[in-house]
Amino acid sequence: MTKIYSVINGDFVLKNEASVLISDLSIQRGYGIFDYFRTVNNLPLFLEDHLDRFFYSISEMNLELPINRQEIKQIIQQLIAKNNIPDSGIRMTVTGGYSEDGYSVAKPNLLITQTAFTFNKESFNKGINLITYNHQRQLSSVKTIDYLMGIRLQPFIKAQKADDVLYYNNNEITECPRSNFFMVTQKGEVITPSNNILKGITRKKILNFPEFNIIEANVKPGHLQSAKEAFISSTTKNVLPVLEIDGRAIGNGQPGEITTAIYKKICEIKEK
Amino acid sequence: MTKIYSVINGDFVLKNEASVLISDLSIQRGYGIFDYFRTVNNLPLFLEDHLDRFFYSISEMNLELPINRQEIKQIIQQLIAKNNIPDSGIRMTVTGGYSEDGYSVAKPNLLITQTAFTFNKESFNKGINLITYNHQRQLSSVKTIDYLMGIRLQPFIKAQKADDVLYYNNNEITECPRSNFFMVTQKGEVITPSNNILKGITRKKILNFPEFNIIEANVKPGHLQSAKEAFISSTTKNVLPVLEIDGRAIGNGQPGEITTAIYKKICEIKEK
Repeated sequence: MTKIYSVINGDFVLKNEASVLISDLSIQRGYGIFDYFRTVNNLPLFLEDHLDRFFYSISEMNLELPINRQEIKQIIQQLIAKNNIPDSGIRMTVTGGYSEDGYSVAKPNLLITQTAFTFNKESFNKGINLITYNHQRQLSSVKTIDYLMGIRLQPFIKAQKADDVLYYNNNEITECPRSNFFMVTQKGEVITPSNNILKGITRKKILNFPEFNIIEANVKPGHLQSAKEAFISSTTKNVLPVLEIDGRAIGNGQPGEITTAIYKKICEIKEK
Repeated sequence: MTKIYSVINGDFVLKNEASVLISDLSIQRGYGIFDYFRTVNNLPLFLEDHLDRFFYSISEMNLELPINRQEIKQIIQQLIAKNNIPDSGIRMTVTGGYSEDGYSVAKPNLLITQTAFTFNKESFNKGINLITYNHQRQLSSVKTIDYLMGIRLQPFIKAQKADDVLYYNNNEITECPRSNFFMVTQKGEVITPSNNILKGITRKKILNFPEFNIIEANVKPGHLQSAKEAFISSTTKNVLPVLEIDGRAIGNGQPGEITTAIYKKICEIKEK
């Protein structure tokens, strides 16, 4: 069996043995951030975008990483070469470190792991069903490790025969726990919420497509009923059609035209 | 040097070597709960109350602990006997476990650690200064490991020359990140917020003191100015006078009469 490595503070260790002391502030106090990017044919996808957000998260959480951007890129290249998992997801996590008093931020621990990942083209046609849920993620622009609510809601989501929740708060739709939300109006305008969300990298790429009329604007829960199409975007999902929200079909309940066109476009640049 | 042990899933391991794999859902997704109680002269304080809340938190987070209450009590007794740290704090943490997909709850990891702790009687006279901050802890009644906001605000708190934040939301005072809040009105009534808070064990003990007129009720930020006294309560702090909020003195800026009386009473039952 091939040996897979993770990196802990610059040291390469066997992935299935990679561990941290339980005094780490992520375990004690849920304090940490991460970012996650894919590799296709051993090439990182949108690495600079992910590193931009990664260092933004680090700064917002008052963490002081002892290594710089260039050094992280070198470690990532070494990991890619060592593991040779051409199609993968690489996760970089930075925690609050080994806190002496269990509350104060210490020297951060940097944990890098790589996992095989191949994009599943089948999932597009299946689409997903969402249910709305009133919740606002704290520090939404920062990619913290806080997924407490999304994970806790899993049994509720399954009981409602849905695939995920779509958060709203103060009469504004925001995002799903791990993806951004887009709706297409009857006029063919594509709208994605701009406030109180994590700004996804796939979302950013979609916003830059010149062929489509895509704007950042408020989406109210009451607007969802009038949507012609809806979809979510994420690093692993690319674009997934939302076929139903709160039990009501969106459009004709099939992946829409514009959604399909945007999906094809994003696959062109990601799934080479 | 004496060896100090921690307990991981029932196994006693040296505290400074106690670790978990980085696939643990606390590190990946901030998913976990804990509780913390003190021992005085090797006797656990209010253990049943803490275990009640501990199992409530476990249940609320859909975690399935493979051992029961009696077994945990046995492990705690063994740890107390083995470590012999008569005055201590014992923390029981339950995480989402080693998740295969990094999102689904797995078999939980149960981590128990003991740390020397002696109550500091000096801190009462010093009191503390608070600053209000608009935030609502998610799942406030559950003792999750989520202290993201409280820890992130530390530099802000220090810059304001304060000791901690007092959260409010929707025009209601709730709590501090690690303690409950009480105010004493000019009429000598003691009021503590009842909603959207973690129900502290020391708070519960105080509410049961028959000598005082203590009620659970809404406290609006605008009420704070009229407070004659204010204090916080917690397992480690017992009762600490709040001498200033947002730069304004509470009462005469000294520990008040009722605060002092409640403090003495809680020390009688806790600091034998």
